[in-house]
Amino acid sequence: MPYINVKITKEGATAAQKEAIIQGMTQVLVDVLGKNPATTVVVIDEVEMENWGIGGMPVSEFRKTIK
Amino acid sequence: MPYINVKITKEGATAAQKEAIIQGMTQVLVDVLGKNPATTVVVIDEVEMENWGIGGMPVSEFRKTIK
Amino acid sequence: MPYINVKITKEGATAAQKEAIIQGMTQVLVDVLGKNPATTVVVIDEVEMENWGIGGMPVSEFRKTIK
Amino acid sequence: MPYINVKITKEGATAAQKEAIIQGMTQVLVDVLGKNPATTVVVIDEVEMENWGIGGMPVSEFRKTIK
Amino acid sequence: MPYINVKITKEGATAAQKEAIIQGMTQVLVDVLGKNPATTVVVIDEVEMENWGIGGMPVSEFRKTIK
Amino acid sequence: MPYINVKITKEGATAAQKEAIIQGMTQVLVDVLGKNPATTVVVIDEVEMENWGIGGMPVSEFRKTIK
Repeated sequence: MPYINVKITKEGATAAQKEAIIQGMTQVLVDVLGKNPATTVVVIDEVEMENWGIGGMPVSEFRKTIK
Repeated sequence: MPYINVKITKEGATAAQKEAIIQGMTQVLVDVLGKNPATTVVVIDEVEMENWGIGGMPVSEFRKTIK
Repeated sequence: MPYINVKITKEGATAAQKEAIIQGMTQVLVDVLGKNPATTVVVIDEVEMENWGIGGMPVSEFRKTIK
Repeated sequence: MPYINVKITKEGATAAQKEAIIQGMTQVLVDVLGKNPATTVVVIDEVEMENWGIGGMPVSEFRKTIK
Repeated sequence: MPYINVKITKEGATAAQKEAIIQGMTQVLVDVLGKNPATTVVVIDEVEMENWGIGGMPVSEFRKTIK
Repeated sequence: MPYINVKITKEGATAAQKEAIIQGMTQVLVDVLGKNPATTVVVIDEVEMENWGIGGMPVSEFRKTIK
């Protein structure tokens, strides 16, 4: 009965991509720990770019520094 | 000073229903552990249907399988 | 298929108390939103006292100030 | 490689304020624990007022009681 | 720069299994969204059995009901 | 009434360091958003090294690659 929370920046992930994330992450727990997929929950949080920080700055600024 | 986080699919919960959730969950901790409601925080996250997975698929697909 | 996370300070909650929390919080979502208890997950995190802060200080210090 | 999650009520925090939060919280971990800012992540969740409870009621009601 | 949190019951997952979970979940985000693994964080929380509830009861009780 | 969750690897942070984190993070929200420290909660989670992944591997392995 695992619970998986995935936080990504909100940049237009499609419904098909989210479905692939849900399927793939659930499969990892089935394969590695033999968990039951029927009770494995995945919640995806899409976070606004200005609400995501790394390197002490908003992620949009940070990306410019690592180009 | 407990903290309670409730994640539900976004399906039109009303303000009155949210108020009942906040009140009910706080009361559980008052009754069971004698916690002080004045410092008990409840945060409700409403998650878009396509961002919630169970059974390795989006919850909307999963519900069709259990009908 | 809701997910509920309860964070409390680690102060000796018994197995029976945890069971009452699980039962009570699940019942709130059954009563208010008609959720299915069979797919409602509750996770209780017990946090060491020195890892919990409020009022800008550890909770053990804070409690002395409000006596 | 720390991860910091900040939950606040959604009340119009500006991009500049969020940037200051990201910078300030990251700096705390640099100063206190010598963490590397380049791998320190900050995620800010802005929560709708009616989804935030304290004192067993929505925060908007609670604020009236403490005026 | 995604963040993935995996909550499982504490039942003796080995270091090798945790490594496989970290690798597998990171790979899902690389494959589906093209994320950079170097800034993808995975945190695994192992939760004591008596702190995990489902079906309104501790998970150990719940498992007996579905045998 | 903000809530701040800090996740760090478990590497011997002292009570004094945790107190400094609690104080510093709370002060950031006081300074930037004018929040009331008395209702600002900070929870620090110390995560076992083998439960923390980055770069698709346990953090202990990852650190060797960036030396």
